[in-house]
Amino acid sequence: MATYDHYTEIEVRFRDSDAMGHVNNAVYLTYLEVARQAHWKTFAAHVGYDQVPFVVARVTMDFRSPAMVGETIRVGLRTDWVSRSSFGLSYELRERDSERLVAEATTVLVTYDYEAKRAMPVPDWLRSGLERVAGRSLPDRPPGG
Amino acid sequence: MATYDHYTEIEVRFRDSDAMGHVNNAVYLTYLEVARQAHWKTFAAHVGYDQVPFVVARVTMDFRSPAMVGETIRVGLRTDWVSRSSFGLSYELRERDSERLVAEATTVLVTYDYEAKRAMPVPDWLRSGLERVAGRSLPDRPPGG
Amino acid sequence: MATYDHYTEIEVRFRDSDAMGHVNNAVYLTYLEVARQAHWKTFAAHVGYDQVPFVVARVTMDFRSPAMVGETIRVGLRTDWVSRSSFGLSYELRERDSERLVAEATTVLVTYDYEAKRAMPVPDWLRSGLERVAGRSLPDRPPGG
Amino acid sequence: MATYDHYTEIEVRFRDSDAMGHVNNAVYLTYLEVARQAHWKTFAAHVGYDQVPFVVARVTMDFRSPAMVGETIRVGLRTDWVSRSSFGLSYELRERDSERLVAEATTVLVTYDYEAKRAMPVPDWLRSGLERVAGRSLPDRPPGG
Repeated sequence: MATYDHYTEIEVRFRDSDAMGHVNNAVYLTYLEVARQAHWKTFAAHVGYDQVPFVVARVTMDFRSPAMVGETIRVGLRTDWVSRSSFGLSYELRERDSERLVAEATTVLVTYDYEAKRAMPVPDWLRSGLERVAGRSLPDRPPGG
Repeated sequence: MATYDHYTEIEVRFRDSDAMGHVNNAVYLTYLEVARQAHWKTFAAHVGYDQVPFVVARVTMDFRSPAMVGETIRVGLRTDWVSRSSFGLSYELRERDSERLVAEATTVLVTYDYEAKRAMPVPDWLRSGLERVAGRSLPDRPPGG
Repeated sequence: MATYDHYTEIEVRFRDSDAMGHVNNAVYLTYLEVARQAHWKTFAAHVGYDQVPFVVARVTMDFRSPAMVGETIRVGLRTDWVSRSSFGLSYELRERDSERLVAEATTVLVTYDYEAKRAMPVPDWLRSGLERVAGRSLPDRPPGG
Repeated sequence: MATYDHYTEIEVRFRDSDAMGHVNNAVYLTYLEVARQAHWKTFAAHVGYDQVPFVVARVTMDFRSPAMVGETIRVGLRTDWVSRSSFGLSYELRERDSERLVAEATTVLVTYDYEAKRAMPVPDWLRSGLERVAGRSLPDRPPGG
């Protein structure tokens, strides 16, 4: 069974909903970002989230059931792999009380030097931080990749 | 000194920021809404926030200092008055740890019958709920109004 | 009859709606911002909107009727006054086709030196730009203020 | 070379940016939604976008370059396939003037009966509408799927 490195609880804001009556699909990407923000804080709190040296290069998301106003979403986040200049995260979003599956997602993050405006190698402190939170050594590529 | 009926803590999401590097001014209205959502839950949890019988008719807001990513905003909310078919709320937004004042606001809410599509009198259960949370009886108009 | 210095048309995005089925009240502040962005471009296109030397200090807004998905909102914007280090704008939001009044608003903008982190006098080029778009000289304080 | 069935131009709102100084990654999903809204209007304008009988089941997105405040994004949208109860769209987002590639995406939409709360077959009028806009008959599954 899949387990995750870190969990974040997010209360659905009324603004997160749309005229369909449930959380708008774009907002789930914000929930992933909130989860990354919280995960980041556990190993690199000295680096502000607005100065993190990576960009989102790719996202995939499967929407399983709509989240509703009044619900709390628990996001599980796991680092799957760290390569030379990118790393991969998996996520699971569940309604906290019912444990109903809301969405599953993956993202590829590319480490990026904002001043030089180009990709850069994953810094050692970032790789070791991700491994420390994961509690295991991380493969250097996606499973089967 | 002003005190409030209810307090809500809101973690700034990275998405709440804009290219100026701080929380976008429109987002403070969302923070007021989150505060109303939480306040509402304390006396009318049986009525979903997407079914609350009022509309925002007026808002005033003074922006005192920018809120930043990584901060937690504590919103104080107070009911100031309840008239025949509207009520007035005041808010104060402070950064939780430093107590720095971020913004002050007022809103006028008009009770509204969504099915009949027109204003309606403030229901008794709403008036008494607001007074119960406030811990005092409420005037029927704004001070000096 | 009130007239405005500049008009902007905004198509309602589905994301602008909330579970009530109409445009969320915080989004109207974004519409004001879009209108300022477009107005700004007419006299200071050389200054990126993310480098404009002012902050929103105060907003008041009266919500007259809900805007709906599929509608186009026409925002009228007028500069009302320019003082030493701030200026005041009024806005009117109408549904473009029916001319239905959606909201009315005012904002006070304070000119701000982001590097020195303090208010600064309104630069001459900004004052004259605002007057050029307005087509008239502007009072140095709010009417009756 | 890939071509698209429909193009929509979207002006970046200042609110679409985040503290990184460019458009926040979640907002690109909103841009896809705006494109679907405009595409929808060309063949089913009689059905409000808040009543469209489908839900987003899956999205993949590759971020190629950041979009900036002041830019206009041109979204190309193409229907790739229509199966019994779902259909697949591809998108390309380019900065309008420079034609710089901003992002590429795909979504799977599942036709859904909101009253019965379950998936339903793609209605004939929807299938023929998608084909009419595409100007060709559509395969019933993803290429290679």
